[in-house]
Amino acid sequence: MQKQSEYSCSERVAQFIGNHRKGYSLQREFYTDADIYKLEIERIWMRGWVFAGHSCQIPKAGDYFTLELDSDSLIILRGDDGQVRALHNVCRHRGTRLCSEPAGTLSRIVCPYHQWVYGRDGKLLSCRGMHEDLDKTQLGLHAAQSREVEGLIYVSLAQVPTDFATANELLGAMARPQGFTRAKVAKIIDYTINANWKLVWENNRECYHCNANHPQYIKANFDHYNADDTTERVKQEIAAAVARNEKDWAASGLAVSHKQTGMTSFPDAERDIWFSANRTPLVSGYVSETMDGQQVAPLMGEYTNPTVGTLRMRTLPNFWNHSSCDHAVSTRLLPAGPKTTLARVIWLVREHAVEGKDYDLKKLLPFWQLTSEQDWQICERQQLGVNSRAYMPGPYSAYKEYNVDGFVRWYLKKLTDP
Amino acid sequence: MQKQSEYSCSERVAQFIGNHRKGYSLQREFYTDADIYKLEIERIWMRGWVFAGHSCQIPKAGDYFTLELDSDSLIILRGDDGQVRALHNVCRHRGTRLCSEPAGTLSRIVCPYHQWVYGRDGKLLSCRGMHEDLDKTQLGLHAAQSREVEGLIYVSLAQVPTDFATANELLGAMARPQGFTRAKVAKIIDYTINANWKLVWENNRECYHCNANHPQYIKANFDHYNADDTTERVKQEIAAAVARNEKDWAASGLAVSHKQTGMTSFPDAERDIWFSANRTPLVSGYVSETMDGQQVAPLMGEYTNPTVGTLRMRTLPNFWNHSSCDHAVSTRLLPAGPKTTLARVIWLVREHAVEGKDYDLKKLLPFWQLTSEQDWQICERQQLGVNSRAYMPGPYSAYKEYNVDGFVRWYLKKLTDP
Amino acid sequence: MQKQSEYSCSERVAQFIGNHRKGYSLQREFYTDADIYKLEIERIWMRGWVFAGHSCQIPKAGDYFTLELDSDSLIILRGDDGQVRALHNVCRHRGTRLCSEPAGTLSRIVCPYHQWVYGRDGKLLSCRGMHEDLDKTQLGLHAAQSREVEGLIYVSLAQVPTDFATANELLGAMARPQGFTRAKVAKIIDYTINANWKLVWENNRECYHCNANHPQYIKANFDHYNADDTTERVKQEIAAAVARNEKDWAASGLAVSHKQTGMTSFPDAERDIWFSANRTPLVSGYVSETMDGQQVAPLMGEYTNPTVGTLRMRTLPNFWNHSSCDHAVSTRLLPAGPKTTLARVIWLVREHAVEGKDYDLKKLLPFWQLTSEQDWQICERQQLGVNSRAYMPGPYSAYKEYNVDGFVRWYLKKLTDP
Repeated sequence: MQKQSEYSCSERVAQFIGNHRKGYSLQREFYTDADIYKLEIERIWMRGWVFAGHSCQIPKAGDYFTLELDSDSLIILRGDDGQVRALHNVCRHRGTRLCSEPAGTLSRIVCPYHQWVYGRDGKLLSCRGMHEDLDKTQLGLHAAQSREVEGLIYVSLAQVPTDFATANELLGAMARPQGFTRAKVAKIIDYTINANWKLVWENNRECYHCNANHPQYIKANFDHYNADDTTERVKQEIAAAVARNEKDWAASGLAVSHKQTGMTSFPDAERDIWFSANRTPLVSGYVSETMDGQQVAPLMGEYTNPTVGTLRMRTLPNFWNHSSCDHAVSTRLLPAGPKTTLARVIWLVREHAVEGKDYDLKKLLPFWQLTSEQDWQICERQQLGVNSRAYMPGPYSAYKEYNVDGFVRWYLKKLTDP
Repeated sequence: MQKQSEYSCSERVAQFIGNHRKGYSLQREFYTDADIYKLEIERIWMRGWVFAGHSCQIPKAGDYFTLELDSDSLIILRGDDGQVRALHNVCRHRGTRLCSEPAGTLSRIVCPYHQWVYGRDGKLLSCRGMHEDLDKTQLGLHAAQSREVEGLIYVSLAQVPTDFATANELLGAMARPQGFTRAKVAKIIDYTINANWKLVWENNRECYHCNANHPQYIKANFDHYNADDTTERVKQEIAAAVARNEKDWAASGLAVSHKQTGMTSFPDAERDIWFSANRTPLVSGYVSETMDGQQVAPLMGEYTNPTVGTLRMRTLPNFWNHSSCDHAVSTRLLPAGPKTTLARVIWLVREHAVEGKDYDLKKLLPFWQLTSEQDWQICERQQLGVNSRAYMPGPYSAYKEYNVDGFVRWYLKKLTDP
Repeated sequence: MQKQSEYSCSERVAQFIGNHRKGYSLQREFYTDADIYKLEIERIWMRGWVFAGHSCQIPKAGDYFTLELDSDSLIILRGDDGQVRALHNVCRHRGTRLCSEPAGTLSRIVCPYHQWVYGRDGKLLSCRGMHEDLDKTQLGLHAAQSREVEGLIYVSLAQVPTDFATANELLGAMARPQGFTRAKVAKIIDYTINANWKLVWENNRECYHCNANHPQYIKANFDHYNADDTTERVKQEIAAAVARNEKDWAASGLAVSHKQTGMTSFPDAERDIWFSANRTPLVSGYVSETMDGQQVAPLMGEYTNPTVGTLRMRTLPNFWNHSSCDHAVSTRLLPAGPKTTLARVIWLVREHAVEGKDYDLKKLLPFWQLTSEQDWQICERQQLGVNSRAYMPGPYSAYKEYNVDGFVRWYLKKLTDP
């Protein structure tokens, strides 16, 4: 169903790619140019595995939510067979958008224009008024590939999707104890960020900016310390935290997979690693990424005590998650033009937890709401500067921006994949 | 005065045209692409006869209204000789827009910038401050062609307009009894529709969508029935309505020109028929297209009794009208970008009819206001779906969408005319 | 630091330039086309001397204001050495916009993202977290050239700026008596004009429109009279005003440099004169460009009596000033797209003058606020007309639009300079 590539890697774009200087930020055009944006949509967003949302958003058959990726709209829908499908939100008759609501429950998909009726599996069930010799089997809704792994839903718009099995294995193993399959959405906040999606990722891939921008975040975490500024005291603190946690975690079958200050290395452009997950300790006194470090909701998943540190997952091109013992926060990015990114932040708690009784949004939200909004603001400010003709790529810190550099390498590799 | 073609039918656009599949809706680009839009402006909107408005909007010398066609603005003005002229709303000195108000009355056209003065015929009368050897006869306002037929005003931006005589004859004969020349504007509503103008026409060219979308309309009409769903009972109903009306109409010199269910066939791409009109019965109990079928204003024109059915007229690229015994409703479309259409709906009643006494807007407007707005809404929803990369042309119903297919054939023919 | 020319004078643009008809207004595309706009930015705005603001806006070390030129942002900043610098508002690390506020005072320039610190001279002072072998001397803020002449600040984005010395000499001599270096900003009003920047200039370069559009302005001035309409009475009036002033001015060392009705000739395309200044009498009864001609603030600069006429200065591409004995009004234009111009109007009075005591904004502002807004309105209306396909270049009046023609010639010359 996919059309042929409309935007080949033209000579002009190839030149921008060829001019990239290693260890430096990207040229202006990568953050502003419409042709490069179109190439990204084709080579990265249409080819990769895009995080869509959480299984617990659509627990029952007929539950759906929609996902807007650039000009495309998808219906993420649980079928009667329990499978999640990603159906293009476009009638096969004359193209009308089928679902207008961002989420809901449906028994059939009925086009509002001429009442073509599709099943929950996307098959065309009826199209009264059409001529009799129409082959209905050829007119089911176009579908994207979808995968569900331990409560995370991914979709791929590629005709032949890339491998998901390896990601499935890693993410599945790491996500399982958190209990995403038995979670409940406590809150969703949608943001429109006036910045290119890569600026948002580059921001995410370093904690160099944390000291100045995230007063709440740095109280709870070790990753803003790097080789250049990790003092003996900090080393001892994280060693103590690791030791303390390892004892607790051994009993629960959890493993500390990131025992140092600084961020784990991700992505790996050379080995095409677009997914990662790790568990790491919080600082002393913190059992949850909350304003005061205290637990604010019932323990999730398989956890039996709150000292589980934080689980962190991220998948390119559009997902990261920070999970504490009592809640999980997922961020989903979607591109909406060269200078616009849609971000959705989703807070999850244990299923059946009751707002006002088991948790209070006033305590649950601030830590990641503040941290997220601080990031969106700085990204928007960076976009304004990058728009300038005077902007030139600058050097990445070898200590603190190795992951930004890794992201840029990954990006350029994907962009130039034939 | 027209410039040379700026947008020739480029190879890229030609390819889209060449790829069209017969009997299917148009490809995505026809509803989204800026180059195709520009070609349409040049080949269809600048060449064809564009409905501007009704004579009764400008009954006296000096009365005018403006018309915005893409980036152009025209002053539709009645001159001292009683003729309607279409003058470009652009000063010949330095290009200033002359009339800012959408309608009014003027004795001279005076440019607000340097006070160049034009007569009501567009001639430059004075330009104080210019050098004496300026040839004022060469500096009259650019004019488009205009025609007035039984109270309908048409303009053409072409240097050599296409034939109007045949349209004039048909429309004139059909429109005469309705008395458009002795009408009064009861209400104008302007809409901005977030959809390509062709989607609005395609919607107009079928009643396949009527059952689901137009609960009011289908109560009064037969055209939502087609060969596939016209039952014996419906056949008898329309036969009875035709018979009933023919008796009445014979006395009035009217003729039933469409005696079946379903829509009359229009347009005819092969014979280049861009205009049509017909008279058809309403269902039993309806003498007017109103919410309850009852007459809501004095009889118009030459009508002596209310059982005149409905007169319907339409001309491409931008006009249709539904007239009942007591009122007439005209719709005028104008393109304002690949994804935007301006629609104006005009309600007419008999001249000298007094609001509050002879008619009540609360009873006059709802039938066509509701029906129109239902259509704009579904067109906007179709545009959203058609924007998607996943949209592919779908099949037209042989029973119900023959006129949509005819419209598409007409459109492609016009677009490829050299 | 400047990139290579991205937008060469393409064949398409060259054709538009080649088609220009002498003595006529420019073709439509010069006011609407994105490619021509980009060429203008490169050839005119990046190469010329752009008026930034007044020295008295930033009297002390660390005082700054920002200037937005198309997509670029500059920090106009007074350094510790008293020099004014124009630093690009773009961090050399990853491009973040440094100053968000339109004006203020700073001791260091600290990037909000990763806390890179620059001195007031733009040098990179610290970038904690970067690898040690980074050459900080190569990472100072990019700077534009800047010049300060008698309280006027100019910047040039060219690598090799054009000559400023001649302008410096003329403007300096003419501006000195007005005392711009000892002035105070009484008011700044910023406007977004929906018109191409050249339409704003063309408006400024003639007083043909004054009679109809500027009832206040024409009461105070002689320049709306030209060879064709200067009566004997008007000739006598200006002769009397000149004589009256020459006597007064001789004592103060001022010179009447424009003694006729009509505007002084500017610019001079052939001799590349992009700056000019002159002093001219006001009409009898007017000592200041105010609503009633009366003085509304303390005498400025070196003036010892109010009968100094008006000083007028203008520099291309973006500045003009009208100064009376008691106040000065500067207008700064900046392009923000083919159809958008940012205008800032700055009212200056003598330094230490106290609002409410020495002057009243209600009396100070109206004359030029009204006159400016009248102009912006007519420019916007002209843009609407010029957008039309029907717009064609019209003839300039030999009597009244010689300076508009001069501006157009200057513009085309600059646009085609290699």
